[in-house]
Amino acid sequence: MAEDAPPIRFGILGCAEVARKVSRAITLSPNTTLYAVGSRSLDKATKFAASNGFPPHAKVYGSYEDDPEVDAVYVPLPTSLHVQWAVLAAQKKKHLLLEKPVALNVHDLHKILEACESNGLQYMDATMWMHHPRTTQMFHFLSDPQQFGRLQSVHATFSYGVSPYFLENDIRVKPELDALGALGDTGWYCVRAILWASNYELPKSATALHKPTYNDGGVILACGASLSWEDDKVATFYCSFLTDMSMDIIVMGTKGSLRVHDYVIPNQEKEAKFSTSSNSNWVELSIGWAPNPSDNVVYNDLPQEVHMVKEFARLVGAIKYNNSKPEDTWPVISRKTQLVIDAVKTSIDNGLEPVEIKG
Amino acid sequence: MAEDAPPIRFGILGCAEVARKVSRAITLSPNTTLYAVGSRSLDKATKFAASNGFPPHAKVYGSYEDDPEVDAVYVPLPTSLHVQWAVLAAQKKKHLLLEKPVALNVHDLHKILEACESNGLQYMDATMWMHHPRTTQMFHFLSDPQQFGRLQSVHATFSYGVSPYFLENDIRVKPELDALGALGDTGWYCVRAILWASNYELPKSATALHKPTYNDGGVILACGASLSWEDDKVATFYCSFLTDMSMDIIVMGTKGSLRVHDYVIPNQEKEAKFSTSSNSNWVELSIGWAPNPSDNVVYNDLPQEVHMVKEFARLVGAIKYNNSKPEDTWPVISRKTQLVIDAVKTSIDNGLEPVEIKG
Repeated sequence: MAEDAPPIRFGILGCAEVARKVSRAITLSPNTTLYAVGSRSLDKATKFAASNGFPPHAKVYGSYEDDPEVDAVYVPLPTSLHVQWAVLAAQKKKHLLLEKPVALNVHDLHKILEACESNGLQYMDATMWMHHPRTTQMFHFLSDPQQFGRLQSVHATFSYGVSPYFLENDIRVKPELDALGALGDTGWYCVRAILWASNYELPKSATALHKPTYNDGGVILACGASLSWEDDKVATFYCSFLTDMSMDIIVMGTKGSLRVHDYVIPNQEKEAKFSTSSNSNWVELSIGWAPNPSDNVVYNDLPQEVHMVKEFARLVGAIKYNNSKPEDTWPVISRKTQLVIDAVKTSIDNGLEPVEIKG
Repeated sequence: MAEDAPPIRFGILGCAEVARKVSRAITLSPNTTLYAVGSRSLDKATKFAASNGFPPHAKVYGSYEDDPEVDAVYVPLPTSLHVQWAVLAAQKKKHLLLEKPVALNVHDLHKILEACESNGLQYMDATMWMHHPRTTQMFHFLSDPQQFGRLQSVHATFSYGVSPYFLENDIRVKPELDALGALGDTGWYCVRAILWASNYELPKSATALHKPTYNDGGVILACGASLSWEDDKVATFYCSFLTDMSMDIIVMGTKGSLRVHDYVIPNQEKEAKFSTSSNSNWVELSIGWAPNPSDNVVYNDLPQEVHMVKEFARLVGAIKYNNSKPEDTWPVISRKTQLVIDAVKTSIDNGLEPVEIKG
C-alpha cells in the first residue's frame, strides 16, 4: 500500500461496547477511517456514531446495510450471528475483522473462511494482544534456542469477575447468543496464548479438567482444560467470569521461561511488562538463584488495538492497491484456535473424556 | 520452652548436599545446636562436620549410630531408606525432621507417623518455604474474604534443569533410591502449594495430564496433573527436572488473586516478593486495569530454613521441657501431600485415569 493511498474505509456492524474501543482504534490508526455504522436501530447507530468519533460524512444505517464504499467491516455482533453476517459481508466483497469468539464451532467458521477466501478477502480475528509490540518481543524470546530452548509447558488464564447485572443480561451468558460463554469469551485468549507459545503447533488432544460451572441456561461460566501434543509438551488453562481479573501466561522451556500477567489487556496502555529467566541455577548452598529473572518493559505509542487495525488495513490496502493475496496466517490460527475450543467443549460435554484434535 | 532452656541437640543422618544447608540453619537458629552426624563412611562424616560448622565437641559416627544425647534427627537420606531409619530413630525417642519426599507412598509414611505418635515425638517434613515470613503474609491475603474471596483455581510449578551428570548419577533419578523422581522431588512442592492455597482441603481426585517423561530406569523426569474438589475448585501443576528453573504459584479467587514466582527458594535470601490483585476492573473503554496489581516485598533477617529449624526446635523444646503434646498440623499436612502424590502416581500408572483421593 503506497504511503499516499487513501485510508481503508471501515463499516461497523453493531454497536457493542467493544465496538467503541475499536472505533477509537480506527480513528487513531493512520491508514483507516470510520465510514459507516449499522445497527438494527437507527437511533442507536446515530448515537453511537456521534459519541465515538465518526466524521460528519460517515453513514449511519438502521440495518446491516450494504454500502459499496466500505472496504472492510468490523463485526462485533453476538457470536451466533457471525456466520450469517460475516458470509454476507464477504459476498459483498468486504474484508473482515471479526470479533471473537469468531464462531460457535469450526463448521461455522469454515463457512466464513471459505466466503473470504473465495472472494479474495482478508480475514482477521480481533484478538488485540497478538498485535502489541510486547507480543513480538516475547515471541522472539520464545524462539531463541539459547535463551528459551524447547517448549515444555504452558499455563494460561483469563478471567474477570462480572457483575450480577452481567450474569443476568449480558449476551455472553445467553445460550441463544453466545453459547460458548466463558470458554468462548475468555478461553479463546487462553487457547490462542497456548497456540502462540507453541508456535501454532496444534495439540493432539484436549481434556477438560473438571465439571465447569454453568448458569441456568447451560452456558459455561468457568472451566479449565489441558492440552497435550505428540511429544512431551503439555498446557493447561483456566478461564472464568466468576474470578477476579487474571491474564497470565507462564511458558516453560528447557533453558528458560517467560511470564506475563496482563497479556490480554496490559495494566497500562502505553507500557507493558513481562519477565524472562534463562539458564538459572542455584547459588552455593541453594539459598538463591543466579541469574535472577529479568523484568522487561515495552513502551508503545499506539495502543494494541490500533496496531491490530493498522496491520489489518495494511493487508487490505495491499490487496486493494497492489494486487497482493490475503495473508493466510490469520485464518489459519483462527481456525486452530476454534478447533481447540471445540475439542474442549466436546470434552466437557462428554464427561471430561480426552478429545482428539484433528487438523 | 523457657528462654534459658538448653538448645535442642540435632543429629544428622547422612551427608547429602541439602544437609549442608540445614546444618547452617541449625547453626544460625538460636535454639538449636549441631550435636552429631552419622554416615556410612566415618571419613565422609568427619569431613562433613569439619566443613559445615559443627562445634569441636560434636560427635562423628561412621554409621547411623544411636546417641542418647541427641534430641532430634534430621534425615536427608534417599527416600527409600526413610521408613527404616525414621522408624528406628523414633523408637530411640528422637524427634524427626524428615527431608521430602518423606516416603515412597502413604503406607510407608503411616509407619513413620505412627512411630512418632506412639513415642510422643514431633514430626515435621523439611518443606522450608512453609516457614518463610512471606508464606504467612500470603496466607493472610488468601484468607481475606474481602481481598481474595473464595478460591477458584491454583496453578503451581517447580522445575529445574539438571546437568547430564545429575541425569546419570543423582539419587533422585535412581529407581532403587528415589523412585518418585521429579514427582517426589519437585512435585512435592507443587502439591503442598496447592494444598496450602486451599487451606489443606484434600482434593477429591487427581488426574495426570499427559504421559510423563521417564528415564531408562522408569523414573519420572517431568509430569503434570490436575486436582479437583467436590465444589468448583480446580488446580494444576507441572514439575520437571528437564525445564529451566520455575517456582510459580498463581492462586485465583472470586475477588482477588496472588502470584509468586520463587516460592520454593526465593531469588534472594533476605527479601522475597509476591504480587496481589483485588477487585480489579477495567478502566473506561477497557484499555487498562483499575486498580493495578500490587507488588509486595517481605524482608527477613533469617533464611526460611532457619525459621523451619527454629519452629521445629520450639515444638521439640515445648515437649521436652513443658510436657506439651506434639503439634499435629505437620503430620496431617505431610500425609495429605503424600496422599495426593500417590494418587497422581497411580493416575500416571493407570494411563491418566482420574484417581479418587480418600482421606
